Amino acid sequence: MIKAGIIGATGYAGNEIVRLLLGHKDVEIKWFGSRSYIDQQYADIYQNFFRLVDAKCMDDNMAALADEVDVIFTATPQGLCASLINEEILSKCKVIDLSADFRIKDVKKYEKWYGIEHKAPQFIEEAVYGLCEINREDIKNARLIANPGCYPTCSTLSIYPLLKEGLIDPNTIIIDAKSGTSGAGRGAKVPNLYCEVNESIKAYGVATHRHTPEIEDQLGYACGQEVMINFTPHLVPMNRGILVTAYASLTKDVTYEEVKAAYDKYYKDEFFVRVLNKDVCPQTRNVEGSNFVDVNFKIDPRTKRVIMMGAIDNLVKGAAGQAVQNMNLMFGFDENEGLKQIPMCP
Amino acid sequence: MIKAGIIGATGYAGNEIVRLLLGHKDVEIKWFGSRSYIDQQYADIYQNFFRLVDAKCMDDNMAALADEVDVIFTATPQGLCASLINEEILSKCKVIDLSADFRIKDVKKYEKWYGIEHKAPQFIEEAVYGLCEINREDIKNARLIANPGCYPTCSTLSIYPLLKEGLIDPNTIIIDAKSGTSGAGRGAKVPNLYCEVNESIKAYGVATHRHTPEIEDQLGYACGQEVMINFTPHLVPMNRGILVTAYASLTKDVTYEEVKAAYDKYYKDEFFVRVLNKDVCPQTRNVEGSNFVDVNFKIDPRTKRVIMMGAIDNLVKGAAGQAVQNMNLMFGFDENEGLKQIPMCP
Amino acid sequence: MIKAGIIGATGYAGNEIVRLLLGHKDVEIKWFGSRSYIDQQYADIYQNFFRLVDAKCMDDNMAALADEVDVIFTATPQGLCASLINEEILSKCKVIDLSADFRIKDVKKYEKWYGIEHKAPQFIEEAVYGLCEINREDIKNARLIANPGCYPTCSTLSIYPLLKEGLIDPNTIIIDAKSGTSGAGRGAKVPNLYCEVNESIKAYGVATHRHTPEIEDQLGYACGQEVMINFTPHLVPMNRGILVTAYASLTKDVTYEEVKAAYDKYYKDEFFVRVLNKDVCPQTRNVEGSNFVDVNFKIDPRTKRVIMMGAIDNLVKGAAGQAVQNMNLMFGFDENEGLKQIPMCP
Amino acid sequence: MIKAGIIGATGYAGNEIVRLLLGHKDVEIKWFGSRSYIDQQYADIYQNFFRLVDAKCMDDNMAALADEVDVIFTATPQGLCASLINEEILSKCKVIDLSADFRIKDVKKYEKWYGIEHKAPQFIEEAVYGLCEINREDIKNARLIANPGCYPTCSTLSIYPLLKEGLIDPNTIIIDAKSGTSGAGRGAKVPNLYCEVNESIKAYGVATHRHTPEIEDQLGYACGQEVMINFTPHLVPMNRGILVTAYASLTKDVTYEEVKAAYDKYYKDEFFVRVLNKDVCPQTRNVEGSNFVDVNFKIDPRTKRVIMMGAIDNLVKGAAGQAVQNMNLMFGFDENEGLKQIPMCP
Repeated sequence: MIKAGIIGATGYAGNEIVRLLLGHKDVEIKWFGSRSYIDQQYADIYQNFFRLVDAKCMDDNMAALADEVDVIFTATPQGLCASLINEEILSKCKVIDLSADFRIKDVKKYEKWYGIEHKAPQFIEEAVYGLCEINREDIKNARLIANPGCYPTCSTLSIYPLLKEGLIDPNTIIIDAKSGTSGAGRGAKVPNLYCEVNESIKAYGVATHRHTPEIEDQLGYACGQEVMINFTPHLVPMNRGILVTAYASLTKDVTYEEVKAAYDKYYKDEFFVRVLNKDVCPQTRNVEGSNFVDVNFKIDPRTKRVIMMGAIDNLVKGAAGQAVQNMNLMFGFDENEGLKQIPMCP
Repeated sequence: MIKAGIIGATGYAGNEIVRLLLGHKDVEIKWFGSRSYIDQQYADIYQNFFRLVDAKCMDDNMAALADEVDVIFTATPQGLCASLINEEILSKCKVIDLSADFRIKDVKKYEKWYGIEHKAPQFIEEAVYGLCEINREDIKNARLIANPGCYPTCSTLSIYPLLKEGLIDPNTIIIDAKSGTSGAGRGAKVPNLYCEVNESIKAYGVATHRHTPEIEDQLGYACGQEVMINFTPHLVPMNRGILVTAYASLTKDVTYEEVKAAYDKYYKDEFFVRVLNKDVCPQTRNVEGSNFVDVNFKIDPRTKRVIMMGAIDNLVKGAAGQAVQNMNLMFGFDENEGLKQIPMCP
Repeated sequence: MIKAGIIGATGYAGNEIVRLLLGHKDVEIKWFGSRSYIDQQYADIYQNFFRLVDAKCMDDNMAALADEVDVIFTATPQGLCASLINEEILSKCKVIDLSADFRIKDVKKYEKWYGIEHKAPQFIEEAVYGLCEINREDIKNARLIANPGCYPTCSTLSIYPLLKEGLIDPNTIIIDAKSGTSGAGRGAKVPNLYCEVNESIKAYGVATHRHTPEIEDQLGYACGQEVMINFTPHLVPMNRGILVTAYASLTKDVTYEEVKAAYDKYYKDEFFVRVLNKDVCPQTRNVEGSNFVDVNFKIDPRTKRVIMMGAIDNLVKGAAGQAVQNMNLMFGFDENEGLKQIPMCP
Repeated sequence: MIKAGIIGATGYAGNEIVRLLLGHKDVEIKWFGSRSYIDQQYADIYQNFFRLVDAKCMDDNMAALADEVDVIFTATPQGLCASLINEEILSKCKVIDLSADFRIKDVKKYEKWYGIEHKAPQFIEEAVYGLCEINREDIKNARLIANPGCYPTCSTLSIYPLLKEGLIDPNTIIIDAKSGTSGAGRGAKVPNLYCEVNESIKAYGVATHRHTPEIEDQLGYACGQEVMINFTPHLVPMNRGILVTAYASLTKDVTYEEVKAAYDKYYKDEFFVRVLNKDVCPQTRNVEGSNFVDVNFKIDPRTKRVIMMGAIDNLVKGAAGQAVQNMNLMFGFDENEGLKQIPMCP
């Protein structure tokens, strides 16, 4: 039984870590950090935990927390984890950072896209990008995990096999992504009000979204060359879910079976990645509440492009679920312990 | 490890039984009955089960099924279970009927409200009404369970303590209930289309809804006299959830503490019933995906009435979850085995 | 052609006044007041008006505004209109106040339920309660209109005929109301976020909602005696619409035709009130975007109660539409000028 | 005052034609055709028209209808208009066909993508493609209008200026479109049920959707060469609205101002096309209920592509509104008569 602390426990991702860890047989939550709600009952903020969590919200003291727990999850805005972390903390416990602070290896690139100074660049090299299906072995030995972004998780896993196998041209990749509204967080902002989001869809952050360099880095590692993509996220009137529809030009004539074989090569033994049957399109509802990634593809012989599709729950595989999966790998637990939730539908 | 069969496995309630039983450590599903989809892969109908269920839909042969399993769930339209059941089946396995066939003790009342002839009235007396928190002991020894309706479950549990304790006048009870759309089932009907339900709310079945006599019976047992209520269900644009707002005149001046004590008397040790803190109103989102019932009340000293509120997930505590809870009681499993899902929010 | 000014033009009700007045052939909007967005283009706040409104937001100076316009709409929080209004303003132009400041004749009752001191009690007596179908003649000659609340409009119009005709017992009225989320306003508050409202329903303000005394006053006028009700509002995951389900005991045995005759007596010639056909339940979708009120009823001979139902668009008949209807009456325009929108469905 | 008949008046597009024509000062509806609801009151099917339409549904007899009206709208499944139309009908009245029957000039292409035999190929050449902003002059003199599809309308208007001006490479166009659920029609099918659509997003018809050749034809006319695109529609949990996000490679380095000038060149004087301000993304909510098309673009200097975005209400500019706009042009009415609805938001 290990002990866990959560910094940022009252955001949507933090709340989801709580949900998952409560069902994890090897973990006990010792610290519900929330600067905004200090000393309030956690279950008063999230009534779904009424009678399931009897603890008060605590502050963000990572140094103090490191003395009490085996693993710290930081589900906080960009910059916070980098400003708190240090060698002493990392020598005492493992850290899984759900923010972007340690995802991008080039600190200049990070500072340019995020518009803030990086306060702990010395740990960037060490941090392991926690995309479990790709970096499993490195994760097992990591002290510090950069938990992937929601869009990068779904995008990378949808595209990776074809890029790795050289079936698509890296210079032609276009990613059109759609996200449920929990991805916008729990901040009290007019654009996130029910009446502003409901019955509408829009693109945002067009050609400027911060997940772009993170996706490009991961795709670049897959094909061994620099990649530049177009990435367009959209806001969809639903609570959870990300759907990625990605386009790329094929490098040669391929059959359905050949492309399917590429996906199977990488995902056949992956519990959480489901390559759907032919012509079945991923839907976010079929992964809701679970850590699954549903992927599929369609070859268009007319344009010689392939359309790659992926669906995840942005709060689970796109955040808290993958964080727990990383923790499982780091501590030698079964990789799907605490993550056996079956997608709930409807 | 017991074996279970489901008749009506492709309806929303049947699908939810599958979700719950897949996470139950003591049960194996042997039969996915679905007249409409015979010989099709179950996971092709419900893609959320892709790679989790590898079985084809089978027919509705309850007699054959009784030879293979220990418990049969019938999640079918009214009348079907009554038309299939017989002594031989009941001698071989337990039956949990999610339809209304065995919920009402007075067969004439059943036939009047449901407009069909009852095909197996000889089993009505034996059947136990499976409202676990009220009839726990009888359920343990039952062969045939009449699994309660979604509205009656939420209504009865919200009102029961005050009625039982004589704090409210049985002749003044008005129940205004609101349900998510999964309660209308998966039938392909115009009124259930997305564009017909979305962005609207309406009452339906006003003064004529079939759950009325079922609620009246249960409330009548609680107070030891015949009860007549007004029950008005409404259709709400959401997938899951029932909220009950019930009104009754108080029989005497009471304090908050006295009413709270009445709820605590019956629910203090109930895992699934959560009496919320003062002035916190139940919300369906806080029980979504779980077997919890959140209840609370408000005394109005001006009108000398009390407002009683309850929230459940109609597919879990209102159908599949309670069915599994009944099964657990009947087979001596832990009552909350397979039912530990934490409400998912948002 | 008259000139209009709007104070509070960037709230949802203010925005709806803009939408309606832009389609009104006899009115020109001269002033888009909005303390929060001064000097910003109005169409930048509400992009639906792009290229339709070319004006900047202005401050809340009611005295200056009175010199420029014939009518002022105040779509502002409680207390603001009362703090700005004076005899000079009323001598120059008409004022239609969408807040509660002048709705309740008993200033002590107002101050108790709203928890603020009334700054202009001297105008309460003069103010006319702008429920057009009931107070039409008084409205025509008014200088100051207290535009009714959304819940009181729908509740009063649903119940009025039966109460006026003595068919129901005033002491037994229970109103269970359901509202879309635009009723909560455009303030940036966590409980109004998309993910907090979506896929859920809850009651709020149980036994304490501020619209209670307003409804009680109006019902009291109808039956000539003091009335105390239970009023329970609920928040529904949809943008617009209020549905009222009201219950009362009948004072005698009545037939469908007798009750129908009571509704027809008051509403037969009303353009905006539609008494639906027998057994058709009002739905908010059928009035969306329009000034219509759909009402109907159901007699329950078992309990000797009647269920009265009404549906409105809370932003139109419940706010901006009724305000325009009041303006039409005050200036002698056709009562439905600018209000001929046909409900949009789906 | 002209007379109009609608064949298919009880589908969502037909219902929307009724809504628009009821507010049109020069048109009277004489015929509410609906094979499924013959002899039923039209307002019983669509209660939003209660007391606004007093007429019964009639059959689909186009020949009889031609004797009674000046214009016929066919809002029917593919193939029906082609099977009914003939020279005699066209000599008596104008026909605006909302189906795909006359949109594609190459009958073989039509038959291949739609999988049905064309019953009236002799009228294909004569039919004018009713995209008003592009083909205005031809429409004025047409007898038979092929009213554009919803996706083609939004796609073509979003891309047209850049393609026409040679700023983008026709071989690189990728269109990722998102539609509300009313686009799927009012047929009682399981995939269109509320609980199947709500809280989910999916692609469908990937690389095979029937609107593909229609879009390719229109884009081909714009650039004077054959065009092949990728077109991927998605189903979004909302009633109305289409959002198009289109991608193409720029043919040269361009500034924001140059691209803006291209849009302005074609749309500056168009009432219904609104080129939004810099960096403002189109949202479907801002055009809901109206005939507006909101377009904008973003240059990505990194990838040398441009992202073009457009939003329409699929039932208005994507169907009924454009049909009325075509009618206005054909009969010499003001082009926006009956189409002045202001987008309703929220």
